Amino acid sequence: MPSWLLPENIADVLPSEARKIEDLRRAILDNFRLYGYELVTPPMLEYLDSLLPVGGHDMDLRMFKLVDQLSGRTLGLRADMTTQVARIDAHLLNRPSVTRLCYAGSVLHTRPSGLHATREPLQIGAEIYGHAGLEADAEIQELALASLALAGFTEVRLDLCHAGLLRALISADENAREDEAALIALLRAKDIPALSVLVEDYAPLIRDALLKLPDLYGDASVIARARAVLPTLPAVEKALTDLEVLLDLAGDAQVTVDLADLSGYQYESGAMFALYVPGLPNAVARGGRYDHVGEAFGRARPATGFSMDLRELARLLPGAAPKAAIRAPWSRDPELRRRIAELRNAGEIVIQHLPGHDTEQQEFEHDRVIVFEGGNWILKSLG
Amino acid sequence: MPSWLLPENIADVLPSEARKIEDLRRAILDNFRLYGYELVTPPMLEYLDSLLPVGGHDMDLRMFKLVDQLSGRTLGLRADMTTQVARIDAHLLNRPSVTRLCYAGSVLHTRPSGLHATREPLQIGAEIYGHAGLEADAEIQELALASLALAGFTEVRLDLCHAGLLRALISADENAREDEAALIALLRAKDIPALSVLVEDYAPLIRDALLKLPDLYGDASVIARARAVLPTLPAVEKALTDLEVLLDLAGDAQVTVDLADLSGYQYESGAMFALYVPGLPNAVARGGRYDHVGEAFGRARPATGFSMDLRELARLLPGAAPKAAIRAPWSRDPELRRRIAELRNAGEIVIQHLPGHDTEQQEFEHDRVIVFEGGNWILKSLG
Repeated sequence: MPSWLLPENIADVLPSEARKIEDLRRAILDNFRLYGYELVTPPMLEYLDSLLPVGGHDMDLRMFKLVDQLSGRTLGLRADMTTQVARIDAHLLNRPSVTRLCYAGSVLHTRPSGLHATREPLQIGAEIYGHAGLEADAEIQELALASLALAGFTEVRLDLCHAGLLRALISADENAREDEAALIALLRAKDIPALSVLVEDYAPLIRDALLKLPDLYGDASVIARARAVLPTLPAVEKALTDLEVLLDLAGDAQVTVDLADLSGYQYESGAMFALYVPGLPNAVARGGRYDHVGEAFGRARPATGFSMDLRELARLLPGAAPKAAIRAPWSRDPELRRRIAELRNAGEIVIQHLPGHDTEQQEFEHDRVIVFEGGNWILKSLG
Repeated sequence: MPSWLLPENIADVLPSEARKIEDLRRAILDNFRLYGYELVTPPMLEYLDSLLPVGGHDMDLRMFKLVDQLSGRTLGLRADMTTQVARIDAHLLNRPSVTRLCYAGSVLHTRPSGLHATREPLQIGAEIYGHAGLEADAEIQELALASLALAGFTEVRLDLCHAGLLRALISADENAREDEAALIALLRAKDIPALSVLVEDYAPLIRDALLKLPDLYGDASVIARARAVLPTLPAVEKALTDLEVLLDLAGDAQVTVDLADLSGYQYESGAMFALYVPGLPNAVARGGRYDHVGEAFGRARPATGFSMDLRELARLLPGAAPKAAIRAPWSRDPELRRRIAELRNAGEIVIQHLPGHDTEQQEFEHDRVIVFEGGNWILKSLG
């Protein structure tokens, strides 16, 4: 097998694509900063126990394992950075107050999430810790939408759901509490016939609500429909009011509401969202509230955040045009060296021509050249 | 063992340190760009064979190994990016001309290189492929010095050596060629008594040169001393002339020359350098010519480059002062939202206060606040 062959779903990022990703990374991190998010960088690998405090079997299978030669213990390569950042908030920073953190870095998956998906996404994201109120969810949603706008996406669809709603219905009925795992499985499979049989003996209000949940999908009017058919439990009303506020703050995004979306039921605890852009069937960004992750690190903190894969995002965007550059000869003449340094200090790209070869590149295009004329080094246009 | 404990020599990078590293990363990559270097991003893991085409046992021991679930083959986590970038040049870009590439990314080591060294350096570097002449070495040296100047280091020491010199001496004597491994080991150990015995039967010129080599260490005058005591072989003369030119281009750096430095003898093929700054006994940057790495990928290309660890570098630098920020209340009032968006568009950091908590941060310091007065949202100084 040739030595330059890469593993499946693993790729190099070549010049113009790498530049596009770098530009995007900076623009999004800079915007996080304008909202007051502080940058942290958790390590690529940790003890497996720290990376898997929640998340269970799926996450376990997605994670590469290694043996640490220094401790003999099993290490995991991070497959997601959210848990790591929650650990930093809970244990390292350990602030009593609200903390806003952001991060960007590679994560690795043992298996791709789809046929063409990379096993090395570049995850970028932002999190707010310490505030249980909807204000934090609203800020995270705004930041996620702003990030896509910055990247140049004009048509964005926002999918909203709320993990608190189903939780409220289940906890209101003793039978439902006992059947929780089965209920989740049937709702996930949208298996209405089997669901009807399972909920037969539940309190009528809860039974009807569970059976109607899979239909509560659509535009903003879903909220009104939900109010009409769901029981008036405080937690249900809170979830619907939360969603109304988030809908109101969605700006230009096209919004859909899916009250039976269970994709984050396991760790999420409140409002959740996914963002979609034209050209990609999967969500480009996902976010939501997951108040319980910090518990594993000895400190349950309210938490809400979002993340996305910069590589996938960049693939959907046009490449940057080549930057204008100046070609200069190579010489030890201090005058030329001074002139080149001056131009670079002024932000010009100056590429010294190494004698005897062509220079070829994707990122740059020569439009000017430095030549020696009449005893001076002068800048000439190539157009 | 507590779940938040990290493996030895592995650490989180917390807010102000992460920001310092990010700023440094950007400044250095931007400077690479001003010299015409194109950015590439090789993957964190590859088949072991691709990562270990040269380098042998040391590199093998430093590299974490994994099994690829998709292919059943052994993967390595990169412990160094130089080989990867050479592979990209040789096989993926495959340009006939000069190619300048740069990169920045995490590498992982099974064992730390020193007691307090991280096992996850953030390697940043630049490489020129396709030019065998000294002009490329000079540019790489200039770029390495410029990178340290950008980072704020004013006192830099440049150590120069040349792998071609010892190679020339050894290839000029048949006995020396046979003893190569033993010679390298003794020179590395500076074991002059054993060396004297080994070289006894060599041609007198080569014998004397090999015995004098360990003394050829010091300031620029070493070159003249070397000319006096070393045989006038063309390859020796070329090495000394190369070093003279590089010395001449060293600018303000304090230069030392060490003609018996063998640290890169294995892969390096020409001029080599190391950069030192006050406060750290180890080199902060290393560079040199290694023309043979591409061979493993089917294409031997002249190559010269340098790299350094941004995390180590950042540790030596003072932290950035907190950035001035504006505190704003949280409200759904569109007027306030518009005002905040305007300020952020103008580059101001605006942190919305989430009701009921303090906000605490290291990266930012509130010096202004937005308040509602007289029916308007106005900006007030906190001083």
